[in-house]
Amino acid sequence: MLINVPESVVPDALRGMAAAHPELTVDVERRVVLRRDAPVAGKVALVSGGGSGHEPLHGGFVGPGMLDAACPGEIFTSPVPDQMVSAAAAVDSGEGVLFVVKNYTGDVLNFDMAAELAEDEGVRVAKVLVEDDVAVTDSTFTAGRRGTGATLFVEKIAGALAAEGAPLERVEAVARQVAGDSRSFGVALSPCSTPDKGGPTFELPPGELEMGVGIHGEPGRERRAMMTSGEIADAALDAILDDLRPDGPVLALVNGMGSTPLVELYGFCAEVHRVLGERRIPVARTLVGNYVTSLDMAGASVTLCRADEELLRLWDAPVRTPGLRWGA
Amino acid sequence: MLINVPESVVPDALRGMAAAHPELTVDVERRVVLRRDAPVAGKVALVSGGGSGHEPLHGGFVGPGMLDAACPGEIFTSPVPDQMVSAAAAVDSGEGVLFVVKNYTGDVLNFDMAAELAEDEGVRVAKVLVEDDVAVTDSTFTAGRRGTGATLFVEKIAGALAAEGAPLERVEAVARQVAGDSRSFGVALSPCSTPDKGGPTFELPPGELEMGVGIHGEPGRERRAMMTSGEIADAALDAILDDLRPDGPVLALVNGMGSTPLVELYGFCAEVHRVLGERRIPVARTLVGNYVTSLDMAGASVTLCRADEELLRLWDAPVRTPGLRWGA
Repeated sequence: MLINVPESVVPDALRGMAAAHPELTVDVERRVVLRRDAPVAGKVALVSGGGSGHEPLHGGFVGPGMLDAACPGEIFTSPVPDQMVSAAAAVDSGEGVLFVVKNYTGDVLNFDMAAELAEDEGVRVAKVLVEDDVAVTDSTFTAGRRGTGATLFVEKIAGALAAEGAPLERVEAVARQVAGDSRSFGVALSPCSTPDKGGPTFELPPGELEMGVGIHGEPGRERRAMMTSGEIADAALDAILDDLRPDGPVLALVNGMGSTPLVELYGFCAEVHRVLGERRIPVARTLVGNYVTSLDMAGASVTLCRADEELLRLWDAPVRTPGLRWGA
Repeated sequence: MLINVPESVVPDALRGMAAAHPELTVDVERRVVLRRDAPVAGKVALVSGGGSGHEPLHGGFVGPGMLDAACPGEIFTSPVPDQMVSAAAAVDSGEGVLFVVKNYTGDVLNFDMAAELAEDEGVRVAKVLVEDDVAVTDSTFTAGRRGTGATLFVEKIAGALAAEGAPLERVEAVARQVAGDSRSFGVALSPCSTPDKGGPTFELPPGELEMGVGIHGEPGRERRAMMTSGEIADAALDAILDDLRPDGPVLALVNGMGSTPLVELYGFCAEVHRVLGERRIPVARTLVGNYVTSLDMAGASVTLCRADEELLRLWDAPVRTPGLRWGA
């Protein structure tokens, strides 16, 4: 691994973010990444966070049009309430803060505690839980469904609405709508390796797939012999569309788990579009790339979100972050 | 691998690009990726290309402010002159075309032949050769130095100048300046696997590094036992700064080879900035991410370019491509 020592991976990365992104304030001590211009007067603030190892999620999504702050935990480990409280206090303009929380037990507990503490300090806090992964319920680390790719949709779309000056209740409602209307399914073609362990965190022999894998390598639905890109797209979309019945256009994320080359991801994207075409589901926008990753895991996930005109308008709105940037 | 069959990896990826990027014209038959609005009246056109497997380079850099067209070859294999001629004819507005060529024997020969053929058809063609990799000369596939990360700098900066309406001679001169003022050095922590071979293309045992690796896994300067991120940054910048003596600010690319997680790349970026700080070389801009990749190789490269005010202005100018996008 390209590291100094396992213990310094997260602070080293934060020092690098500070060096590369002068438009952000990176508090390496407190482990918070902030918009440099926070708090933005009159604007609801968005705060997210979670274990590191999923970059660009979340720190790479801090900036105008998306998050006001992110709290990175250790690799695959929830951040602590202190980070979230400190972030909320730093970004609250008086209009309140929305916590975007992926559904993992540690994250949920810590964001709950942070919300209470922040409210004690006079910050109005709302929360949205992202639980989009249809693969399994009650997996390792999670009661209910896991939060994965839909987090990007929630952060981008609610972030755009907040940027327009919408009040907390409205930003929260749209964030819930996006979370509720999104579904994901992922596959692993290789395990991932954490710096701590120095090697694979689970076993997945070459030539086998984990269907429905979680973003920490949690088990999915089944272990299968290698399938083609087209067969994987069929299976992933079967799983998603068993649960989500879009009656109009969707927003699609074709997401890499980390080490799957972009040339393969685009090929997979072609197969995802083929399946959606066969199902007569129009794809309004497609984002392809490594956005919600699992360190160096090979594989991909698909996330779909039902998208009305208003959601597409917010999706298209300008965003300026290290990981997602357009129109600004 | 996330593929259908090895033979269809490149056309499958092109179908995916077409699906995800309606702002591009993707000619899957001819294997050319084009700006949808090409030719742009009054503008010099930029055409590049090379073997696939380095994405987002080059197809992901097609769009306003960067390339007008890209010609993807098979994985790690030069595109053929027909692709380049067809691209040049499609994007030439009458102001001429600049070919951006990475220094690999096949690419150089084929772009040379394409330039002659295009000129026979009345297209004015200029060429710039990118040969920035200081690691070795006369490596596998290459007479002289290999072309790597500087390609992104050349395409972005010359693309911005072309977008302003500069004539071919001036676009060519600035492209040459950027190519001449850039140096790179890369390390591999793992080999990469091509779809054809279905496994690693070279041997690199865990716990060893290839110092000075090429973007196709070509041998570098030496095989070393694993080093820390800080030691690698020291070695890479020693190699670069032995050859390039910046007397002012530089533009820095901290580039991932494909499967190195972003959290590690940012940590490496911190070490690159530390070394440049020790050498008293100001870093005007830093780009961190997987931009000039080698399929699923683990590792990273550093590219520095001497950057005057004019170059920085062109670097900051709006760009709107799948792989690089800001201010537009």
